[in-house]
Amino acid sequence: MTRCPCEEEVLLRIRPTPEERAYIRTMGERLIEAVERSGVAKAMMVGSVARDTFVRGDRDLDIFMLFDPALSREELQEQGLGLAHRIAEEFGATWCEKYAEHPYVNATINSLDIDLVPCYAVASATEIQSAVDRTPFHTRYILAHIDDYADDILLAKQFAKAGGVYGSDHMTEGFSGYLCEILTIYYGGFHALLRAAACWRPGEVIDIEGHGAKEFDEPLVVIDPVDPERNVAAALSVSRMFEFAELARGYIAEPSEAFFCRPPSPPLTREVFSRLLSARGTHLFSITFATPDYTPDTVVPQLRKSAESICELLERSGFPANRIDTSMGEERCILLFELMAGEAPAMRRHIGPPLSARENAEKFLAKYVQEDVFAGPYVEDGRYVVEVSRPFTRAIDLLQSKVLFDVALGKHVRCSMKQGWTVKAGLECWDEEFASFFSGFIGRSSPLARIKRTTGR
Amino acid sequence: MTRCPCEEEVLLRIRPTPEERAYIRTMGERLIEAVERSGVAKAMMVGSVARDTFVRGDRDLDIFMLFDPALSREELQEQGLGLAHRIAEEFGATWCEKYAEHPYVNATINSLDIDLVPCYAVASATEIQSAVDRTPFHTRYILAHIDDYADDILLAKQFAKAGGVYGSDHMTEGFSGYLCEILTIYYGGFHALLRAAACWRPGEVIDIEGHGAKEFDEPLVVIDPVDPERNVAAALSVSRMFEFAELARGYIAEPSEAFFCRPPSPPLTREVFSRLLSARGTHLFSITFATPDYTPDTVVPQLRKSAESICELLERSGFPANRIDTSMGEERCILLFELMAGEAPAMRRHIGPPLSARENAEKFLAKYVQEDVFAGPYVEDGRYVVEVSRPFTRAIDLLQSKVLFDVALGKHVRCSMKQGWTVKAGLECWDEEFASFFSGFIGRSSPLARIKRTTGR
Repeated sequence: MTRCPCEEEVLLRIRPTPEERAYIRTMGERLIEAVERSGVAKAMMVGSVARDTFVRGDRDLDIFMLFDPALSREELQEQGLGLAHRIAEEFGATWCEKYAEHPYVNATINSLDIDLVPCYAVASATEIQSAVDRTPFHTRYILAHIDDYADDILLAKQFAKAGGVYGSDHMTEGFSGYLCEILTIYYGGFHALLRAAACWRPGEVIDIEGHGAKEFDEPLVVIDPVDPERNVAAALSVSRMFEFAELARGYIAEPSEAFFCRPPSPPLTREVFSRLLSARGTHLFSITFATPDYTPDTVVPQLRKSAESICELLERSGFPANRIDTSMGEERCILLFELMAGEAPAMRRHIGPPLSARENAEKFLAKYVQEDVFAGPYVEDGRYVVEVSRPFTRAIDLLQSKVLFDVALGKHVRCSMKQGWTVKAGLECWDEEFASFFSGFIGRSSPLARIKRTTGR
Repeated sequence: MTRCPCEEEVLLRIRPTPEERAYIRTMGERLIEAVERSGVAKAMMVGSVARDTFVRGDRDLDIFMLFDPALSREELQEQGLGLAHRIAEEFGATWCEKYAEHPYVNATINSLDIDLVPCYAVASATEIQSAVDRTPFHTRYILAHIDDYADDILLAKQFAKAGGVYGSDHMTEGFSGYLCEILTIYYGGFHALLRAAACWRPGEVIDIEGHGAKEFDEPLVVIDPVDPERNVAAALSVSRMFEFAELARGYIAEPSEAFFCRPPSPPLTREVFSRLLSARGTHLFSITFATPDYTPDTVVPQLRKSAESICELLERSGFPANRIDTSMGEERCILLFELMAGEAPAMRRHIGPPLSARENAEKFLAKYVQEDVFAGPYVEDGRYVVEVSRPFTRAIDLLQSKVLFDVALGKHVRCSMKQGWTVKAGLECWDEEFASFFSGFIGRSSPLARIKRTTGR
């Protein structure tokens, strides 16, 4: 398979230099030696550095320390962190403890960002005791199957990064590095991956090792070759999946370097934002509150869930939405709602039971015949309908009320909002701290639409 | 079965007097004799007068003239109308020709309203050549099965009339006289009918003669005892069906004369209407045009269909409706739309194809990447969405535009509107000619809710 000239250009730019590679490898080997010298654990490099699939400048070195699975969790943690501390000190690192599923040490040595992660040396990936135990198997699998696809994997990763679909974190909901690797190997190279992705349909299943067993309901299912119970693409949303498919189609039709560079788009000014918003004629509302003191992977899904719950409340209350979005800033989080209506009539229609449900129908009639209603109860298509007062005729009043706490907010969002929240409307929503977020919201486009408009094709 | 005292009261009021009955019967017999004297046709009385199930004052006498089925349609029409003309002249009537499925003569003799209807004397109702041929079989069937249910049928008819659900015309979509008779006989009296109706469910099937054969999909199916192919309740809407069920429940719980009298409700004044409409906060629009020169049974369904089509157009265009209604006046017809929003943002969301439909998705992207859009195309749940301009941001502009002719209007409505139509908004919609219609619209209630509020129970 011949590379397009633009791909060669890109590779020259993103492929790690021999010096960079040698430097990181040497450091990795020194750390492994130090771990194994202790006699309490084996060690290995994992991640893209170990697999030679890292993009130039991504100097994250992951050293996993593999302990006897007979140890208890507490023993693993105590011995693992103890060893990591000693090694960090030995190398003169600045370091700190961090917590993912279980604790590890993050150290900076000679400007390299290094994770020292204790895990169990289990015999197979199906026996893991926590997610980190699986990582060494991923590295071994890729090393055994990478063949000469290293460059193809680099291109796939860079392509996904530039398209904004790289990363399995909750904010992105995109393609992890491991997923890019598996897909490139499975299809047989970068071009083959793009041709396949261009034809993806929701429910696509890739089972590289023919495990077959389990059913998944995610839009893309990539059975982990080292663990049949796991979908490598579990975090991928249907939107990111098809943005990748869209980019693949665009690239096949007209390959260009634009697909590998995310052009920096300067945020809008307040003036431009105001002009665009006014032209839309929609009704924008923002809710801001103090950022909960947790990691983005905890907070971001809660922001989404809270915004969706509030959006459903707004829709139920007569204020239909066009779009919602959320952003987690250093100090404050923002929930943004673009509504098609900011006000609603005082009258709202309340749909009652079907008259064939006799008991409920009789109760409904008895209740509303007593009350002061606008009209009804009357019969429409066999159901009772009554026209009653709407509690909030302005969306802003609803958003400022405590009714928000009646819907499913994320736990930490609820806690933070209990301390207070601010509601703004229309042009007042604009906030310099969130300028990029507002710009992306108002000019939302698919990655390929953006490339086509930028390159004028 | 004992009657409630209120039913005896009602019967005294609605049962025809012996004098009235004798007078009409005598007239009927004289007309039959006159027809048969001609030697070309047999004759019979049909309808509620023949069955002794007419409510006092409803002095409609139907004489059917039964001709040889060997006659052609043209011969039947010529001989039938000829004979009817001669008889009308012989009785010194004022008369005119009218047209239902086929022509007949309507005559007024001694203040009685008399129809002289030619039909074929077929051997059974399944051999009919037009709907009128079936009527004699209905009369014979009821006479053979009425037993001593005459009073019960009178009560059922008056109950349905007062409840506003009597009449199988397109305006009412309720219970025909024949349907009331069949139901009363089938269930075994007025009380038994009410107890059964109180438990009706949609899809109720009544097959008095156990014909069984055909499937119907109307909410109430009453297989015609004289014709297994026909649903006697075909014209009944699910709303009228359950308004009857509702009234039955109310009457069973608390029988009273209120269920047999429709209290005259004087129409609202313009001032009261204005106050009620303002309180609702909704957006009312009316369309008026010249009444097409056809019968209500032709025009009314077209008004409904036109209003529904326009309502769907409004909803598609961003103006959701609460309710619509129509009225056919002498000179003008009115379509009324109560909307939840009279204006909509300049931006509207246009949903495109799923990205998995590759060809359509590529065309969609190519089209909108070229156009001046508010945002998008972007990917949402695997589909393209683009935010474009809305053609009409005000409902009134849409209603005044020729776009109305793009939707399914009734044929005669379309013709009349081609000559011009008037759109009014809000309080301006009020029209003295339609005062009752507007009053009913704004105070819409089920029959039982109205009775409960009137009687204060």
